[in-house]
Amino acid sequence: MTAVPVVPSYVQDTWWVPRQDAEGGAVVRDAATGEPVARVSAAGLDVAAALEHARTVGQESLGALTLHQRALLLKQMALALTARKGELYEASARTGATRRDSAVDVDGGIGVLFTYSSKGRRELPNANVILDGPAEVLSKDGSFLGRHVYTRLPGVAVQINAFNFPVWGPLEKLAPAFLAGVPTLIKPATPTAPLTEAWVRILADAGLLPAGTVQLVSGAARDLLDHLRLGDAVAFTGSASTARRLRAHPAVAEAGVRFTAETDSLNASVLGPDALPGTPELEAFVAQAVTEITTKAGQKCTAIRRLVVPGVLVDVVVERLRERLGATVVGDPRAEGVTMGPLASTDQVAEVRRQVERLVADGGEIVVGALPGAEGPRVRRADGTTGTVPGGAFVAPLVLRFADGTAPALHEVEAFGPVASVVGYGTVAEAIALVNRGGGSLVTSVVTDDPQAAVAITLGIGAAHGRVLLLDRDDARTSTGHGSPVPHLVHGGPGRAGGGEELGGVRAVHHYMQRTAVQGSPRMLTALTGVWHPGAGTTDDGEHPFRKSLAELAVGDRVVSGSRTVTLADIETFAHFTGDTFYAHMDADAAAANPFFPGRVAHGYLLVSWAAGLFVDAAPGPVLANSGLENLRFVTPVSPGDSIRVELTAKQITPRETEDYGEVRWDAVLRNQDDALVAAYDVLTLVAKTRAQVPAPV
Amino acid sequence: MTAVPVVPSYVQDTWWVPRQDAEGGAVVRDAATGEPVARVSAAGLDVAAALEHARTVGQESLGALTLHQRALLLKQMALALTARKGELYEASARTGATRRDSAVDVDGGIGVLFTYSSKGRRELPNANVILDGPAEVLSKDGSFLGRHVYTRLPGVAVQINAFNFPVWGPLEKLAPAFLAGVPTLIKPATPTAPLTEAWVRILADAGLLPAGTVQLVSGAARDLLDHLRLGDAVAFTGSASTARRLRAHPAVAEAGVRFTAETDSLNASVLGPDALPGTPELEAFVAQAVTEITTKAGQKCTAIRRLVVPGVLVDVVVERLRERLGATVVGDPRAEGVTMGPLASTDQVAEVRRQVERLVADGGEIVVGALPGAEGPRVRRADGTTGTVPGGAFVAPLVLRFADGTAPALHEVEAFGPVASVVGYGTVAEAIALVNRGGGSLVTSVVTDDPQAAVAITLGIGAAHGRVLLLDRDDARTSTGHGSPVPHLVHGGPGRAGGGEELGGVRAVHHYMQRTAVQGSPRMLTALTGVWHPGAGTTDDGEHPFRKSLAELAVGDRVVSGSRTVTLADIETFAHFTGDTFYAHMDADAAAANPFFPGRVAHGYLLVSWAAGLFVDAAPGPVLANSGLENLRFVTPVSPGDSIRVELTAKQITPRETEDYGEVRWDAVLRNQDDALVAAYDVLTLVAKTRAQVPAPV
Repeated sequence: MTAVPVVPSYVQDTWWVPRQDAEGGAVVRDAATGEPVARVSAAGLDVAAALEHARTVGQESLGALTLHQRALLLKQMALALTARKGELYEASARTGATRRDSAVDVDGGIGVLFTYSSKGRRELPNANVILDGPAEVLSKDGSFLGRHVYTRLPGVAVQINAFNFPVWGPLEKLAPAFLAGVPTLIKPATPTAPLTEAWVRILADAGLLPAGTVQLVSGAARDLLDHLRLGDAVAFTGSASTARRLRAHPAVAEAGVRFTAETDSLNASVLGPDALPGTPELEAFVAQAVTEITTKAGQKCTAIRRLVVPGVLVDVVVERLRERLGATVVGDPRAEGVTMGPLASTDQVAEVRRQVERLVADGGEIVVGALPGAEGPRVRRADGTTGTVPGGAFVAPLVLRFADGTAPALHEVEAFGPVASVVGYGTVAEAIALVNRGGGSLVTSVVTDDPQAAVAITLGIGAAHGRVLLLDRDDARTSTGHGSPVPHLVHGGPGRAGGGEELGGVRAVHHYMQRTAVQGSPRMLTALTGVWHPGAGTTDDGEHPFRKSLAELAVGDRVVSGSRTVTLADIETFAHFTGDTFYAHMDADAAAANPFFPGRVAHGYLLVSWAAGLFVDAAPGPVLANSGLENLRFVTPVSPGDSIRVELTAKQITPRETEDYGEVRWDAVLRNQDDALVAAYDVLTLVAKTRAQVPAPV
Repeated sequence: MTAVPVVPSYVQDTWWVPRQDAEGGAVVRDAATGEPVARVSAAGLDVAAALEHARTVGQESLGALTLHQRALLLKQMALALTARKGELYEASARTGATRRDSAVDVDGGIGVLFTYSSKGRRELPNANVILDGPAEVLSKDGSFLGRHVYTRLPGVAVQINAFNFPVWGPLEKLAPAFLAGVPTLIKPATPTAPLTEAWVRILADAGLLPAGTVQLVSGAARDLLDHLRLGDAVAFTGSASTARRLRAHPAVAEAGVRFTAETDSLNASVLGPDALPGTPELEAFVAQAVTEITTKAGQKCTAIRRLVVPGVLVDVVVERLRERLGATVVGDPRAEGVTMGPLASTDQVAEVRRQVERLVADGGEIVVGALPGAEGPRVRRADGTTGTVPGGAFVAPLVLRFADGTAPALHEVEAFGPVASVVGYGTVAEAIALVNRGGGSLVTSVVTDDPQAAVAITLGIGAAHGRVLLLDRDDARTSTGHGSPVPHLVHGGPGRAGGGEELGGVRAVHHYMQRTAVQGSPRMLTALTGVWHPGAGTTDDGEHPFRKSLAELAVGDRVVSGSRTVTLADIETFAHFTGDTFYAHMDADAAAANPFFPGRVAHGYLLVSWAAGLFVDAAPGPVLANSGLENLRFVTPVSPGDSIRVELTAKQITPRETEDYGEVRWDAVLRNQDDALVAAYDVLTLVAKTRAQVPAPV
């Protein structure tokens, strides 16, 4: 037992190993050879102290950074892991992963960091709180408003991982929590703990883990939940039975610790009724099924377990699968040409055998492959020879056919390996019912060229799914695949799939924050959010706000323009200059017959163009460009003889961490001579951080 | 027992009462007099059949309506209840509610319907699915996209209500579920079941309950959850202990039935360190405390239980509360001048006594009022005389003072009546810690004129709260009040408050829908969502889309303009006409020194104005007005000599249910002579539903 090294934990910003004489722990073996690789034990580790370190030091570290600063750190982590990717691939091969499998796990995990870094900076404010939705005006005079604000949880994000994705799994949980400002404690699964340790070490070596923000407990920590309290969160990936047990823990059931679970489910792939032999859809369906059965040797929560095909096509599909799967080269992932590696451990082999036997007992007929014998299948060994490998966790691909679609095992029993079942359907309604018998899934694919079928099936199964993939001739080549959650989209599913939700871009950042409705005066909401609210104080200090750099500008800085009167000649001029001779501007009778206009009115584009002329400070200065405009609404039409004026107020200031400039969002309000609201919108500009960066000062 | 009428249930679109000889049930008594009012029993009612009726007939009824059509029905419900409001006030008085209390419950409930009707039509599409966030482009060539789509749950929305708001409570749960398209089954609390029955009857009489969409079970239904399954949802309001029991039910813990709970909590009101005697904030703090203690006789989940005040102001606050609460007139709500009614039942009186005794035992000193004697307090009777009322559920206002802020009872024990405790604090950090000892609350008020204190406290307590009210001199008069959830904002809170979330405008509609990430080709996503996605097919049938009425137009209808070249003279003309002589357009050297521009460039406003001239069809036709513009981004600058052209594609069509027109959102893309993207935005127009409504056809 002690001949192999122990996998260290990383707690309280230090590497930790059990005392040499500490007993217990588990031995991790090379999946393809059975050789011992490491011992995993956290015996004697003070989990409570680690959690408290996160809640104090870790919270402080992340609280000192803005959302964009945290996002930038995620990018640096991604770059550090990329630089030492080779080490991760080596460790990954020992878990049974082929290079293709490792790409899913390692590059996939790095990709999550890149995506969260990018989305964090593009879609979130450079601040510490996140706003949700617009302000709600709750009093007639505008003195009482409501606004939804996300603030971070004050505790620790505990993640309990499955063995199958030791890089991607913890990173897809870490990235949004880190971005939200909540420190993480990682509990990897034992069989692949060395690989998780490997990437945590790379980040620690690179100095990219601010104090208390990331901790790793390599080993059993059975009392982990006993130490959690309101403000902490648990993200679990694993079996439905463990999820149930954790959810019933008093910390979750009573004390309000947040809990989300992602459990394996009986994911389906539906072949559309139109996808006859010769169609690209049938080919895409089969190709995707083969990929899902063989990638990670089928050890994916998202893998396809149920192939739901038109009854008349069952034989065709089985035949095509037999051909394609027959070409699979099972073996040691380090051997040339191997296309499918072993399972993670021989325990998993025994488990898959048990589940396949249950499927067979409930009517499943094995139509591709066979149950592995006691000595395991013949496979390609590391040295290129072929034969059985004692201690290797190999299973060959296996497909079952169910004649009876109502067999419970088909929809309930998951063999977590390279195993899938084929079942036929008659009508689209029957296909929907078959899919929904899974009781909630992470993902189902619908493979059809018929939009009507795609819509009907998606609406029929949507509520039971976290993700639906519509595969057709247009996207068959560019699809990211049934089994691959992408960080942009939510991952998780109802019922059997665990009832949780992860990823989905910034949506997952919210999982580590509390949404609170804050009611108050415009002044107080402005102070809290850093975003100017109408009715809050404004500053007109005589200096045009366009003359202020980002460092000098403050929300509430305002310019109120003079007024300008619109004439019929102006409307004519604008119409002929732009070519916009729409009748509401040019035809008095038709305009008057229009339900919205009293007669000929000024173009909306004329009004916003004039507004710019009214509010602009033209000389070179810190304002670099008008980058856009949002939420423009035209309210009161402007007739010849009316005049307009504009109020422009600095609303939100977002410095860019990696540039010499930032974005300023301005609140623009146009009113007419009677103070009636003509138009309201946001103007977006890019503004230099300091006057030194102004291109050509006067 | 049988002398009083039984409260009917409304199941399977019919009124139902137990067989005359059925036993059991509970007697509801007039809260102020103890007179029996009704008997409540659902003995023998087939709950399973009612649930199945909702899942089949009710789902079909709502599925036949769009979101806007459902929203309109909510408005009609609100109008029907308004028309017969008198009956509801009468029934409400029998529950112990004063007119002010009834306004909170009855008018509050009607207000929820109006708000959801209005928000549903303004903020949601006139469709059956709701989109969440923008499309995510998942392949370089744009052939593979991802989009989050909400589809309704296929089951039934079961609501289990508390006794204190028999109108508002069920309606705030019904409105979002109805809007989402999910039928509701209402389980009222026994003591106020007659009032819930009264408003359900008004809606049924008015024919506003489509088959299977609303059902009412007036009486105990202990096995209700046994009949629920994945796709159903439970919204519970009541005690934390019942919430715990329901959450542990296998339907919730294992089968994936959604569950949300709103439980009473130890809500606080914090007086800021700046709010010295003489400030408007101290007055607002005291006035709000008195309102919260006396409204509904303190029987509100949101009522203030803990008054957290600067230590030096404790005596002042207690004195002011004594004065103000001393003026309370407790009595029969039907008597003139009564400002506080009884509790809902004598059982509640006993319960409040028990909890006050626990508070006293843990160090609470009663400083205003006294524990009621066995015969109850002297109150104003219905006939205007004063005295005790045997059988009346009266309690006088009561305030305790805690010298020790760490006393557990202060933060854990809720006396659900006109009872609050005062505790002092030293620093702002101590105030935050005191509030957070509540273990999660629905709402806390922070009463201060100091924005820094307001921000510090809000950030310190935010994660433990569903709502925070910032009260100051600006909003003291217009505030909707600590205890009043508004339908626009979320209601609920973490931990002790139940961990749930309700209301929040359309956010609550999502609670009855599943968010699913749908991946697919632009063509398939367009078919599913009804919203055109770039890359999906377009139609250019020779007829300009501006010539098509809403009935004729289809998403994907497109016009591609000719191109137009920008000259320096055009830029000069535009600058002088609009007054926008910003240096990037007018000063060659300064423009070239700018990091974004090669030299003088065309105004963004010139580009969008020209684009309108390029895509417009000017003659009178179905397009009535340009109502706005959204998400405009300028990407590639346009220099003199460059030319632009525009593609305008119908993206989304939203008929308005109550108008002759609807909104059309157009996807506008400007490109230059090299096909580079110049700008992209959405143009919003109002378009007549049919050609007959065109104002002045040519």
